[in-house]
Amino acid sequence: MDQRALHAFFAPRTVAVIGASATPGKVGHSVVVNMLTAGFKGRLFPVNPKGGNIEGLAVARSVSELPGGIDLAVIAVPRPFVLPALEELATSGLKSAIVITSGFREVGREGFDLELRMAELARAHGIALLGPNSLGMMNTAQGVNASFSATQPLPGDLAFLSQSGALCVSILDWARGENIGFSKFVSLGNKAVLDETDMLRFLGADPASKVILGYIENVEHGEEFLRTARQVCRTKPVILLKAGSTAAGAKAASSHTGAIAGSDKAYDTAFRQSGIVRARDVESLFCLAEAFANLPLPKGPNVAVVTNSGGPGILAADACEKTRLNMARLTPETIQRLQALLPPYAAVYNPVDIIGDANAERYRKALEIVLDDPLVHAVLLLLTPTATVEIEATATFVAHLARRSEKPVVACLMGRTHVAEGRRILRAAGLPCYAFPEPAMRSIEAMYSYAQWRQKPVPVYESPSRDVGAAGRVISEALLRGQNEIVEFQGRDVLAAYNLATPRTVLCRSSEDAVAAARDMTGPVALKIASPQISHKTDVRGVVLNLASEAAVRQAFWDITSRTQRLRPDAYIAGCLVQEMAPHDAQQVIIGFKRDEQFGPLLMFGLGGIHVEILKDVAFHLNPLSRDEAFGMIRSIRSYMLLKGVRGTPSVDLSALADVLLALSALAQDFPQVYEAEFNPVLVNHERALVADMRMTLRA
Amino acid sequence: MDQRALHAFFAPRTVAVIGASATPGKVGHSVVVNMLTAGFKGRLFPVNPKGGNIEGLAVARSVSELPGGIDLAVIAVPRPFVLPALEELATSGLKSAIVITSGFREVGREGFDLELRMAELARAHGIALLGPNSLGMMNTAQGVNASFSATQPLPGDLAFLSQSGALCVSILDWARGENIGFSKFVSLGNKAVLDETDMLRFLGADPASKVILGYIENVEHGEEFLRTARQVCRTKPVILLKAGSTAAGAKAASSHTGAIAGSDKAYDTAFRQSGIVRARDVESLFCLAEAFANLPLPKGPNVAVVTNSGGPGILAADACEKTRLNMARLTPETIQRLQALLPPYAAVYNPVDIIGDANAERYRKALEIVLDDPLVHAVLLLLTPTATVEIEATATFVAHLARRSEKPVVACLMGRTHVAEGRRILRAAGLPCYAFPEPAMRSIEAMYSYAQWRQKPVPVYESPSRDVGAAGRVISEALLRGQNEIVEFQGRDVLAAYNLATPRTVLCRSSEDAVAAARDMTGPVALKIASPQISHKTDVRGVVLNLASEAAVRQAFWDITSRTQRLRPDAYIAGCLVQEMAPHDAQQVIIGFKRDEQFGPLLMFGLGGIHVEILKDVAFHLNPLSRDEAFGMIRSIRSYMLLKGVRGTPSVDLSALADVLLALSALAQDFPQVYEAEFNPVLVNHERALVADMRMTLRA
Repeated sequence: MDQRALHAFFAPRTVAVIGASATPGKVGHSVVVNMLTAGFKGRLFPVNPKGGNIEGLAVARSVSELPGGIDLAVIAVPRPFVLPALEELATSGLKSAIVITSGFREVGREGFDLELRMAELARAHGIALLGPNSLGMMNTAQGVNASFSATQPLPGDLAFLSQSGALCVSILDWARGENIGFSKFVSLGNKAVLDETDMLRFLGADPASKVILGYIENVEHGEEFLRTARQVCRTKPVILLKAGSTAAGAKAASSHTGAIAGSDKAYDTAFRQSGIVRARDVESLFCLAEAFANLPLPKGPNVAVVTNSGGPGILAADACEKTRLNMARLTPETIQRLQALLPPYAAVYNPVDIIGDANAERYRKALEIVLDDPLVHAVLLLLTPTATVEIEATATFVAHLARRSEKPVVACLMGRTHVAEGRRILRAAGLPCYAFPEPAMRSIEAMYSYAQWRQKPVPVYESPSRDVGAAGRVISEALLRGQNEIVEFQGRDVLAAYNLATPRTVLCRSSEDAVAAARDMTGPVALKIASPQISHKTDVRGVVLNLASEAAVRQAFWDITSRTQRLRPDAYIAGCLVQEMAPHDAQQVIIGFKRDEQFGPLLMFGLGGIHVEILKDVAFHLNPLSRDEAFGMIRSIRSYMLLKGVRGTPSVDLSALADVLLALSALAQDFPQVYEAEFNPVLVNHERALVADMRMTLRA
Repeated sequence: MDQRALHAFFAPRTVAVIGASATPGKVGHSVVVNMLTAGFKGRLFPVNPKGGNIEGLAVARSVSELPGGIDLAVIAVPRPFVLPALEELATSGLKSAIVITSGFREVGREGFDLELRMAELARAHGIALLGPNSLGMMNTAQGVNASFSATQPLPGDLAFLSQSGALCVSILDWARGENIGFSKFVSLGNKAVLDETDMLRFLGADPASKVILGYIENVEHGEEFLRTARQVCRTKPVILLKAGSTAAGAKAASSHTGAIAGSDKAYDTAFRQSGIVRARDVESLFCLAEAFANLPLPKGPNVAVVTNSGGPGILAADACEKTRLNMARLTPETIQRLQALLPPYAAVYNPVDIIGDANAERYRKALEIVLDDPLVHAVLLLLTPTATVEIEATATFVAHLARRSEKPVVACLMGRTHVAEGRRILRAAGLPCYAFPEPAMRSIEAMYSYAQWRQKPVPVYESPSRDVGAAGRVISEALLRGQNEIVEFQGRDVLAAYNLATPRTVLCRSSEDAVAAARDMTGPVALKIASPQISHKTDVRGVVLNLASEAAVRQAFWDITSRTQRLRPDAYIAGCLVQEMAPHDAQQVIIGFKRDEQFGPLLMFGLGGIHVEILKDVAFHLNPLSRDEAFGMIRSIRSYMLLKGVRGTPSVDLSALADVLLALSALAQDFPQVYEAEFNPVLVNHERALVADMRMTLRA
């Protein structure tokens, strides 16, 4: 969407309310009142066939009475009149629109078609259209409240976008009670034209918005969203709550909006890769936002806790341990300075307990000492309302110090009534103030994770050498033959084209051939059924391992082929593959990808055996993949230490594993016809990685 | 502690304030004022050598002026005067005391000794003593506020006990702001005499307390606490926040109170076994309490969600999926009734979305229909403040229905200002009211888990047949010889005494003996070093597996013994054990126990290989152990399916595994000298379980 149209949308000089009403309680009345209450400085045109006067403004009887080139039209007429109104406005140069009216995509086929026509019209005329089925939009800095919300937002520096109008209502109500303000507030509605990506791009460049918050149920254009988010997050935190993160939630979501969301794994991966902070619930969305809005990011994971009571200090230490943060180990100098400051029974280690009789001055000095410590990256200040504590004075200097410090200082005033004024002081300074240590600690963790993401170098993508033509021929031939899968013996040609090593394998058509082939190999061999129709070899017990004698090879050949003939009379049996067994020190690894509806190829990596299927110990990554990111995937699984070597066993060749990942990533990019692929197992020891078996699913 | 003394403590008719003061701000003044403000109906005696008058009450100059047999003395004099005052009171028949004065155990050796003397005095005279270093105690029903808290609690039906005085202050302040009331409120202080177990026992029987809440840093008498909790939880929910649950937290806790807490694993196990609901942070402590206080427990895991907007419904479904609950599948009849009630675009499946224009009447009918559904065990009602919703009317009938229903109805009014009155209505009816779906769902889950625990039959403990005398002789002899470990070849005698099967094993002193022994066994054998000094055989590479030929056995014998001689010249080498190899279909299991400081023998069970050490997939149980509980342990590990049989492999003999667990449990009970024991591996296949190796650590 054109950024000028979006500018007209967010900061209109002329606003028409189509379907304005003089009757309080009607949506068309609320919009006019909200615009006036918000202090809109531009020209406001109510439109209603009845004419007359609304809140002192003359009402235009039709769109034709309006001046041309209106910046923003808010449309709240019944459904049959939406499209005609829009058509008329479009011809006279409308720049943007909010369609509040509902009854489109969300109610079935007919509404869906209408919505499509509306979207086409808007796109054809370059109109930035929000909705339909939207609560509206607010821009507190410009005095715009083009919504029918009953609550006016406070001004602030958080931008908020939501795919649920009802949630907008609740959040506006809740945020007002919490004294949380907004720069922009957008109810996305059905996203016929404008979607989260447009908003992200605009708000990313909006100086009035320090943090972008959002509630989404699905993303419209996954790869574009990813690219945009990655860019915005480099300079501004984006915190999203993604609903439908579980199977039950996704089911509820799809019956709600009819939207097809990609897998939650893909969303999780997308958010992680693009630097988006994922909130786990509505409450933490705002807990996080408060911290991100005005604090510097921590430069490391070490947190110091300053408290006036032991219990909360312990809770904070517990909360710290449950995150990726560490309790800072204070320097001897810091400890000496604290000892000089504090009474003998105070705790000078971390948590620093300045004990119950502490006043504001002791808090201030302790905080300054701890902030001076070079090993401390963030400070959590806990306060319980004891008799001596001087809450307001403490809050005032905390606000002062926190705004000057290069390290984040997060305050947690525990209580309600007695700490209310202290809380107000901190909030007024734009600082977060928590009631409990746990959400405070989680906020520091989120800031730290985000800071780490920002420090990562921009990934450099390499292009592994490969013979795309050769692989393409195998795939095209398979598709021409009507195959929807490529398995081992065709697959080997694809693997070869991507320079991937495979165990020595010979296709043998008779048991005598098999015996001869086995004789040529060192050590025991495996026999595997070779048939294009059989992709799950274990279904016919088509794999026999560890054959060490000629008699055993011969017997296995007969067993496998006759059993397959019996169980799958439909299958063409090419013979058996005789294959070198893996070196006994090899680890089995599974590498694969699946195309996600929203985000494209989702690569996966994990150890074989029970690790992937039963323990779900798997790393995911959305294409493209850099070498660093490939190593990152390998390192991120819990069972990494089995690859790294435990108890004296050497590390496997991690670089060879990364090569396999990069090759598969390239394959996914090269061939959209390959819907999913799995290399299973990949055998890796300290000197090489062999793809021992593979399977690809094709989609013409 | 004598329950009559505790009765005098909580509901005193006579209260003396030792160290009462006329100066506002002093602790001794606050206590007197708090007692008066709380509306104490009994006789209140301020005591201060200065005499005079405090708040209209005549001040006794010394304890000797008081009548005998005072029910409760609140002691707030400086530390040197505490013990003398207590001594004088004790001789005149004092029944209970609260020592507010601090400076005892928490400040070092001298204070610790004083505290011990105080405790001895109290115990000798049967005085129920709370503290020292306590904020005090409140009993709202009796007009008692024997504390120096600045906040008076509201009356209510939650009992609260806390090991942190500062946390008490914060919680009183916070709860008052949230309109949450208390029956009893106890600041445990240093727990010189009265501890959490005494409180649990008393509050468990207290009809004014519906739910018991607590914050603890450690438990004083683990096994007694467990027994008491198990009994109380049968009839009343106990919800505890245990601080120091992580290594960092435990470190902070031990430097705070000097208390030695057992391992968090043991606490977790203790809570789970005794039915205690473990809160994960301060906020959820109260979220849970609200639900438990007045709602019936759900009879099953199926939750129906009724909402007036889609987004929050999806969030609720997500939250549900993250718990042990299920989204209920509604019956066809329910769906039909909902279809008849709701507009065409409403969602009649679960979540039931009665859409944005719903009023109170539609809410009521939908809720009634859903509650009628026999497959629904609990209902979560979500409300966003739309224009039509009639929040007060909805809250009123929800309160009405929820109090009558046999199924829990949990309300979540999303917002702040607009829903404030609705929230007040629900709270006034004693019902929980959440602001977000996630904590609401977690509360239902906690109720469900607790209900499941309550439904469990009381465990029946059996006593496995065993020869305690024979095992005792081995252990005594080992101790006499100064051994601190019992390993394989002594261990076999202990295993035999507990009727545990072991693989056929022969101790061989020469390689020729070993060859002969191997010849007698079927299949390949293992050789293991036999030396009382070597418990970790792998340290000397003292185990060689899969020896299939005579030459291999001979070679292995030489290798193992010569390597051991070289690496551990101190060790006496008895020879090698020649042992039958496990059947190839056997799973390796680890079964062991370790004595926890607080709770006694903590049994553990897990699969061998990486499962226990790397994946931490382990089940724990505190002694004693019933057969049902043994099966419960086995079933609870994530890798259970590997035992149960995957892909056609048969289940292992679970009953044989349970026998091993029961035998080990008995051994732990029989011999306190055995500090820890490990059977590793236990080899189990479909027909039997063999203990292949074992190790016990002794403590004289």
